[in-house]
Amino acid sequence: MAVNLTIPSQTDIHAVKGVQIGIASAGIRKAGNKDITVFQFAPDTAIAGVFTTNRFRAAPVQVCEAHLASDNDVRVMVVNTGNANAGTGEPGLIDARKTCTELAKLLDLRPTQILPFSTGVILEPLPMDKLLGALPAAVSDLQDNNWFNAAYSIMTTDTQPKIHSNQIELDNKTITITGISKGAGMIRPNMATMLGFLATDAGISPTLLKDMTREIANKSFNRITIDGDTSTNDSFMIAATGQSGIYVDSVASPHYAELYQALRDAAVDLAQKIVRDGEGATKFITITVEQAKTSEEARKIAYAIAHSPLVKTAFFASDPNLGRILAAIGYAGVNDLDVSKLRLWLGDVLVSVNGGRNPDYLEADGKRVMQESEILVRIALDRGECTETVYTCDFSHDYVSINADYRS
Amino acid sequence: MAVNLTIPSQTDIHAVKGVQIGIASAGIRKAGNKDITVFQFAPDTAIAGVFTTNRFRAAPVQVCEAHLASDNDVRVMVVNTGNANAGTGEPGLIDARKTCTELAKLLDLRPTQILPFSTGVILEPLPMDKLLGALPAAVSDLQDNNWFNAAYSIMTTDTQPKIHSNQIELDNKTITITGISKGAGMIRPNMATMLGFLATDAGISPTLLKDMTREIANKSFNRITIDGDTSTNDSFMIAATGQSGIYVDSVASPHYAELYQALRDAAVDLAQKIVRDGEGATKFITITVEQAKTSEEARKIAYAIAHSPLVKTAFFASDPNLGRILAAIGYAGVNDLDVSKLRLWLGDVLVSVNGGRNPDYLEADGKRVMQESEILVRIALDRGECTETVYTCDFSHDYVSINADYRS
Repeated sequence: MAVNLTIPSQTDIHAVKGVQIGIASAGIRKAGNKDITVFQFAPDTAIAGVFTTNRFRAAPVQVCEAHLASDNDVRVMVVNTGNANAGTGEPGLIDARKTCTELAKLLDLRPTQILPFSTGVILEPLPMDKLLGALPAAVSDLQDNNWFNAAYSIMTTDTQPKIHSNQIELDNKTITITGISKGAGMIRPNMATMLGFLATDAGISPTLLKDMTREIANKSFNRITIDGDTSTNDSFMIAATGQSGIYVDSVASPHYAELYQALRDAAVDLAQKIVRDGEGATKFITITVEQAKTSEEARKIAYAIAHSPLVKTAFFASDPNLGRILAAIGYAGVNDLDVSKLRLWLGDVLVSVNGGRNPDYLEADGKRVMQESEILVRIALDRGECTETVYTCDFSHDYVSINADYRS
Repeated sequence: MAVNLTIPSQTDIHAVKGVQIGIASAGIRKAGNKDITVFQFAPDTAIAGVFTTNRFRAAPVQVCEAHLASDNDVRVMVVNTGNANAGTGEPGLIDARKTCTELAKLLDLRPTQILPFSTGVILEPLPMDKLLGALPAAVSDLQDNNWFNAAYSIMTTDTQPKIHSNQIELDNKTITITGISKGAGMIRPNMATMLGFLATDAGISPTLLKDMTREIANKSFNRITIDGDTSTNDSFMIAATGQSGIYVDSVASPHYAELYQALRDAAVDLAQKIVRDGEGATKFITITVEQAKTSEEARKIAYAIAHSPLVKTAFFASDPNLGRILAAIGYAGVNDLDVSKLRLWLGDVLVSVNGGRNPDYLEADGKRVMQESEILVRIALDRGECTETVYTCDFSHDYVSINADYRS
């Protein structure tokens, strides 16, 4: 039961010129599942990515990083679900490389031009026979507008596909931005078991795209959390094919700002959709911390609130339990925080001032906000000018049910 | 439903010479509740405490610290349940001081000889009329062996009272160590909504007792976590009355080691009892990280595991989901951790080596350990010689139910 997660109809999804997608069924975890997705990009496409910070970085993440560092002409991404190829040691690396080698043969490319992605169960060897056996079918399926099916085929415990598609006009040219993501559990800043793939037919220089991808991740995929767990496989990729005739190579380029904004909006939407489909989520919560001295302290406070099981269960119960929110602010680790100066709002209701309850606050007003499915928690610290926003969801019985299933 | 929490029978609880306890009913939250507890100590008792690190330190915590700093002859502790007097600003401080002033009058002491403690709902003013009205009855009730009733009267959402009582022989003298604690939710290192009161009739110099209290807290109350939330009111106190004829004033004193060990064992037991009665707990989990380079990195890894909702739900499900534990180790923030060197045991079963599954590991063995009600998770990092242990519980449906009750 996702929270206000909209799925665009297939006809509203715009193909990205220079991107073809093919899907196949390898039956990695369940027979018949569509579990292999191949993206092929036109020559001269720039590709950049950011990856998990978990020390148990999965084999495909390590191979992705190596290929991106060593080859200037990456042209393909291959994704499997059902098995994360994580915690698999040296044999896992061999499997990830073998996937690239076999796919390269089929597409007449170098193995280093291929980036592998895996998501699913950890600590089990990738069933290579099944995976490799499905690659020819995925390649035969490559076609121009296959995003809708791809959004389904990268799902694991997701209940809904996550797709964003938009177009903007720049210099009388139509620029398309389309992407997909997957998530569910183990979602936390700095990448969690989440994958995000965004493509545009704008042209962006590889150096600039690298910076943009990092910045955009820090406002989107790196600002979502469901349970505070960071997975071993998280990856967020942007591909810019340049087929639209627009080219941007610096932040001073005339169309940079609009293009950045459109890509960022797409990434924020795809990241938020992961939270909206968080395991057991019934509410979507935005936490904004303003007037912080540094971005880091704003993030610390926002995450302390977003990760507190006591706060999250109070949201589930529609209980405006201010004490739990204030306690989380207090233990966030900002050691010189003067709590007597902060203000806290639930939606548009000012609930706390001077380190205590706002004298004009009525519990009924707080309760009204907490009953909504989209809730804004806003804190002003009166210490500086930095603002950070984090997105999360509530914590329900279903979270426990889903995650207490034996090997869900 | 507490996990293997033993309650000593009333006859097994030893009075501590020099300690009297009185109990009364103020009806702060519910009429008729025994919710006021007064401890009175004989002259020359040394008292030391450690308090929450939360920036929203409750009014009574602030008053405790001020009185301990300004008065060398603290003689009384007064505890109320039902209201935490936290997030109450200046009026809260006035209330906490007023409690001390009124009780001082009844006992013919200075207000600074009294330490106030509160636990319960945050952000609501302390109902002073009720509280002050019950003080005379609590004073009239002061008696030698009232620990059993006191353990009940400091409970909030606890389902069981938490008591420890023990005696050791030093120099042919019997030394008694008796204490009580309360906890339930919002339990995390560096104090959570937990109170711990430990007393001994050994004599300990005030300076030494201060050090011992901090050290003991760091091996007991500061090493437990239920949901990672640190409360505004946590306090752990040790009182040493000196009535037994034994006196210790330095770590070189002949009886120091035995006394330290006995006090530490008592504190560890009282702290563990809080976890055993954790909200919704069905299993008691000990997490030990060995061969770390520093204690800090050992703690980081132990807490990452202890706080992961994914790991905690897997414990609830008796699912030996190694991937979740390894992922938590990986994101604990030890940036140069070489995961290929670590070993992970569930109980006596070696489950992971070389960054992956132990080839000899059988899932049935892991499952057998996970089905027990007391589980040891042990990790060896092969980086150094530091060890840290953290205690936690699993995460069940009942945790959500308890905390999603409107203003539980």
